[in-house]
Amino acid sequence: MTANETTLRSEGRAANALRPVKITRHYTRHAEGSVLIEFGGTKVLCTASVEEKVPPFRRGSGEGWVTAEYGMLPRATHTRSDREAAKGKQSGRTQEIQRLIGRSLRCVFDLSLLGERTISLDCDVIQADGGTRTAAITGAYVAAHDAVSWLLAQGKLTRSPIKDAVAAISVGIFNGVPLLDLEYTEDSACDTDMNVVMTAAGGFVELQGTAEGAAFTRKEMNDLLDLAEKGIGELLAAQKAALGA
Amino acid sequence: MTANETTLRSEGRAANALRPVKITRHYTRHAEGSVLIEFGGTKVLCTASVEEKVPPFRRGSGEGWVTAEYGMLPRATHTRSDREAAKGKQSGRTQEIQRLIGRSLRCVFDLSLLGERTISLDCDVIQADGGTRTAAITGAYVAAHDAVSWLLAQGKLTRSPIKDAVAAISVGIFNGVPLLDLEYTEDSACDTDMNVVMTAAGGFVELQGTAEGAAFTRKEMNDLLDLAEKGIGELLAAQKAALGA
Amino acid sequence: MTANETTLRSEGRAANALRPVKITRHYTRHAEGSVLIEFGGTKVLCTASVEEKVPPFRRGSGEGWVTAEYGMLPRATHTRSDREAAKGKQSGRTQEIQRLIGRSLRCVFDLSLLGERTISLDCDVIQADGGTRTAAITGAYVAAHDAVSWLLAQGKLTRSPIKDAVAAISVGIFNGVPLLDLEYTEDSACDTDMNVVMTAAGGFVELQGTAEGAAFTRKEMNDLLDLAEKGIGELLAAQKAALGA
Amino acid sequence: MTANETTLRSEGRAANALRPVKITRHYTRHAEGSVLIEFGGTKVLCTASVEEKVPPFRRGSGEGWVTAEYGMLPRATHTRSDREAAKGKQSGRTQEIQRLIGRSLRCVFDLSLLGERTISLDCDVIQADGGTRTAAITGAYVAAHDAVSWLLAQGKLTRSPIKDAVAAISVGIFNGVPLLDLEYTEDSACDTDMNVVMTAAGGFVELQGTAEGAAFTRKEMNDLLDLAEKGIGELLAAQKAALGA
Amino acid sequence: MTANETTLRSEGRAANALRPVKITRHYTRHAEGSVLIEFGGTKVLCTASVEEKVPPFRRGSGEGWVTAEYGMLPRATHTRSDREAAKGKQSGRTQEIQRLIGRSLRCVFDLSLLGERTISLDCDVIQADGGTRTAAITGAYVAAHDAVSWLLAQGKLTRSPIKDAVAAISVGIFNGVPLLDLEYTEDSACDTDMNVVMTAAGGFVELQGTAEGAAFTRKEMNDLLDLAEKGIGELLAAQKAALGA
Amino acid sequence: MTANETTLRSEGRAANALRPVKITRHYTRHAEGSVLIEFGGTKVLCTASVEEKVPPFRRGSGEGWVTAEYGMLPRATHTRSDREAAKGKQSGRTQEIQRLIGRSLRCVFDLSLLGERTISLDCDVIQADGGTRTAAITGAYVAAHDAVSWLLAQGKLTRSPIKDAVAAISVGIFNGVPLLDLEYTEDSACDTDMNVVMTAAGGFVELQGTAEGAAFTRKEMNDLLDLAEKGIGELLAAQKAALGA
Repeated sequence: MTANETTLRSEGRAANALRPVKITRHYTRHAEGSVLIEFGGTKVLCTASVEEKVPPFRRGSGEGWVTAEYGMLPRATHTRSDREAAKGKQSGRTQEIQRLIGRSLRCVFDLSLLGERTISLDCDVIQADGGTRTAAITGAYVAAHDAVSWLLAQGKLTRSPIKDAVAAISVGIFNGVPLLDLEYTEDSACDTDMNVVMTAAGGFVELQGTAEGAAFTRKEMNDLLDLAEKGIGELLAAQKAALGA
Repeated sequence: MTANETTLRSEGRAANALRPVKITRHYTRHAEGSVLIEFGGTKVLCTASVEEKVPPFRRGSGEGWVTAEYGMLPRATHTRSDREAAKGKQSGRTQEIQRLIGRSLRCVFDLSLLGERTISLDCDVIQADGGTRTAAITGAYVAAHDAVSWLLAQGKLTRSPIKDAVAAISVGIFNGVPLLDLEYTEDSACDTDMNVVMTAAGGFVELQGTAEGAAFTRKEMNDLLDLAEKGIGELLAAQKAALGA
Repeated sequence: MTANETTLRSEGRAANALRPVKITRHYTRHAEGSVLIEFGGTKVLCTASVEEKVPPFRRGSGEGWVTAEYGMLPRATHTRSDREAAKGKQSGRTQEIQRLIGRSLRCVFDLSLLGERTISLDCDVIQADGGTRTAAITGAYVAAHDAVSWLLAQGKLTRSPIKDAVAAISVGIFNGVPLLDLEYTEDSACDTDMNVVMTAAGGFVELQGTAEGAAFTRKEMNDLLDLAEKGIGELLAAQKAALGA
Repeated sequence: MTANETTLRSEGRAANALRPVKITRHYTRHAEGSVLIEFGGTKVLCTASVEEKVPPFRRGSGEGWVTAEYGMLPRATHTRSDREAAKGKQSGRTQEIQRLIGRSLRCVFDLSLLGERTISLDCDVIQADGGTRTAAITGAYVAAHDAVSWLLAQGKLTRSPIKDAVAAISVGIFNGVPLLDLEYTEDSACDTDMNVVMTAAGGFVELQGTAEGAAFTRKEMNDLLDLAEKGIGELLAAQKAALGA
Repeated sequence: MTANETTLRSEGRAANALRPVKITRHYTRHAEGSVLIEFGGTKVLCTASVEEKVPPFRRGSGEGWVTAEYGMLPRATHTRSDREAAKGKQSGRTQEIQRLIGRSLRCVFDLSLLGERTISLDCDVIQADGGTRTAAITGAYVAAHDAVSWLLAQGKLTRSPIKDAVAAISVGIFNGVPLLDLEYTEDSACDTDMNVVMTAAGGFVELQGTAEGAAFTRKEMNDLLDLAEKGIGELLAAQKAALGA
Repeated sequence: MTANETTLRSEGRAANALRPVKITRHYTRHAEGSVLIEFGGTKVLCTASVEEKVPPFRRGSGEGWVTAEYGMLPRATHTRSDREAAKGKQSGRTQEIQRLIGRSLRCVFDLSLLGERTISLDCDVIQADGGTRTAAITGAYVAAHDAVSWLLAQGKLTRSPIKDAVAAISVGIFNGVPLLDLEYTEDSACDTDMNVVMTAAGGFVELQGTAEGAAFTRKEMNDLLDLAEKGIGELLAAQKAALGA
């Protein structure tokens, strides 16, 4: 019995394989950075908007700010979810995710080099099939990079405030088998899932592991981190290829 | 001097010409109907979701309901707009538009043939360049049609509740010249703009004319309606072609 | 069979007749303009408040602003409606109406002559029997005129920023008969209803037509506009008479 | 020096005199009870709406409910106040007042005789000049009485659930002089003000005294209660006269 | 039969006796004043926070501000109440109470001596058994006093802005017997209850009496005020003792 | 140079030492479980409330639910924070924490053994000095245990649904030194901090690591997990001792 036989993976994907990753830059017209990122059936539009102002707590600091918001179109999912704008508030899940994206991106920025301006990353899920937050982080990095290139091209910056690249992936354990890049059906079925955010330099930026059913062991965690490091290496290569184009 | 010289039209478009219209069905995977409609640079994703329930005021009536919600991604526009979900409420403009879409679509439905179920039309603007509400209505019709086809294919309906096709276009007067299908720069600059919603049978469903600067005359209104009829005819043909594919 | 026999009109009113219009100025004490306007059983209190400030987007422009808010007392209607303040939000309908009133009034103001101040028009429905938004626009004009007279009398303005008069009426088709100034029972029953806003100079400011049941034809629309022009002419005369008093 | 010389009273009103009280029944058309009550320049529209349902906590109890809501039109006051519906919440003051009105009215109702239905009292201030809450209570009683008469006339009740009449007045101390029925300027200037709610049988239902500046003594309180008893006696007579009409 | 036999008092408490009062200063570490006050089973944590700013309506006045907020932990009560932060709004009761606490404390402050700074009193009920608002006022005074001592010690003030001490108690009538300091079961069962706020100088600051069932007489009110005066005398002594420690 | 010299630890605490842990059961009277837990200067009141109902998504499942809410008194912190109930919404941080507590506790419950009832864990921070979420989880377990004992004692359950114990601790790296149980000043200064939730059986339930400044390495993460395991072992012993008392 192979790993694949015990999983819910689609189309013969190996347990340690990413879904096909596709990064489309300049997806929409107005934003300084606009990237559609696809992890298999998960599609997230990440735009980076430059605004010549900072939040109150940064004013006068000479430093910039990088922040993120996350949303999901009502029918990005299998069944329709209520529109958060109509309900009048963002769910705890939405806020948790957008805070994670913001922290992850700020970690690779030297905010003092950005000047008193803000880069807002809007990550909107067009279609969801698991891993939307990791796709969002991975795509937002490319969008932020394009926004910085625009600032350099405009002469508004002379030196890039980006210190490193950042990407993210989910891993989980299903029926005892560690899996890379969980699809929706796997995500729901996994005993444990972990979202891992890493830089190109190899450091961890965020690590969020959750036992859905049984608690997980140190050994399992190490296996998951090995998988995550492999996957993130491939995502960083995909980002690089996209930006080199 | 041609009409074009006095307008802000892009790329040699005639005063009475639509922008290129593109209708992509099955744009996303999960919705019963999912259509990306493009009017030039305006791109709206319209999904139709079937739900086996109706709002409280229809319960027990044996009749169905068709409703719509509208949203704009924060950076669909030239400058970033605040996310309505983060602000905690939908703007008056958003509510006005989604009410218009809902009424327009209900007008071509025989709700008693739909059964006690709801079709929710979510119209989300991915990129805005004027005319988002008219593109939304035109695209929502195609998405609704696909959702009805799905209901028929599933055997949940034996007869289509759709009585007629519906489409919409904007018209306006700029420097005295009536223009069809306003782009964003025209929309902002026009003295008068009008949104017209019509059925394939040739009737008016909705008519919303607004004088931004000077009031408009009966003669100007008639010129605008002539233009609108022409444009809607072309949109109805585009819908038909898309659904025939 | 006369038109009246086929309609729901009260008290032998002709299809092309307005309900009795009554305009009472100085209805309340504190506002710079305070008008109770009655269209038959519909009673709307319109106050105009002058404030020496403008919204953020007008600051430093040297220009003024005219805006409107609309509300309905909970028991203005046949059955009690929930109080919007208690529910914590204004309905889409309310927002739609107050935006319409604001646009209609701004259309007859030269905002550069108003100076950096705001005229806020509060239109509160004391009793509703159809046509509240058209009564509100018609009454708000008189209240705004009184507020401008106050500004002139105070020496705060030397020249009136009001360019023209504005009034509004509803029209509709019931059982094939075009009707002027719809009462509540007619409004609910009409296939088509249209709200028309015009200036004394004869131009259209706003035109909002909606097919409730069947779509309407160009011919029907023209009949409705003829009726509306007639009615608005009478309303403009009533405003003039009230202001002359 | 007379009391009047030391107060801010308008038009030679004696310290122990009410302002002119006017109670107009059937002020609007739709409500089961509709009363405009005026205490001098203070005008409050009180409607009583009968609804054949009770709040969740009363369901199945066989008993009814009496509740109240309070609002103020934005320009009822000297300077325009923000509309609570637009702000999205009722102020603490508004909630405090509507809770007071509700308790005061429930105190004279035998809810078990009302049956499982609700009487909602909407008290909306059309024009404010001090004492809006006391005018609201006094007027709401008359509106509630009319609603009960309607229920009796409809045969929905065979016996009135109203046990007693209730009315309210404000009293205060200005420059050492006890004043009855405070006008706005007095209310703002008083060291102490007290709102007193009493029944026709002579009992106290609510008593709310507040020292704005210096604390008040037992003696002062007794003087104020004497004044209040006098004023409430006159209000109860006015209610009786209005209902007898 | 003694008074006690006809009441619900716990542990042989006399009708005119307070529950054991305990005042613990410096209960938490960060606040400038932090007091846990206990009236029997009712425990309220009152903190006083000094902030070097005033609300907009006081800016530039040279005067300070004293304000209060009130909250109840969800399981302070017999059955769990919904958390107000999760519901997204404070109840009318909460707002009523925090306004009462704020007014009561401001009454003993000379705000011109406080300078342009704010003392915020947060009164959070840890455990509730009746009388939470009166305990809050009594404890908030001690916390405010400690905050003022801190300001004096810091050299930020040279003279205390506190003019007098203030304390509060509830009284009620149960089965015809006047009771001091109502426990929860008594509070629910009483025909009349009254909250009384007094200064050390013997004046009334606030008086709020409510008839739950039958209206109350002038005689009953006087009996209740006698009881309240006695109880407040004891509370003022307890405050003094605590502050002397 | 010892570890302590390079840290901000108070009072000679070793880098791998917990602050004094104190668990007080039955801290308040009404809740089925009520625990004050102290990690040094951090004090969190954790109550467990049993309610005989479940959220809609569990109804009819025969299974129970365990959920948590988190709050902080406004002056639990060094400077006063705005009250979330007054602001009208819970922050993203609050929601993130309460979701974490809920998941952590559900992980040690067999919900099918709980029956269709809910245990609500309210964790309210009375005083904050770092580690409030880990203290909350550790204390909530004890409160939940007491609530289950109450259910067993009442005969509502015959077998405990608790499968294992759970506790949590924070760890971080400051100046290259791994530290256990971060105080507020350390938490703010650390490059990396991690919250670890483990069961008595030794498994991980939640792991949340965040690089505030530089990213962290696999080696650093392993050192932190070693420290966390040590600390959680001691917390589990403290819980056991408290429950044995």
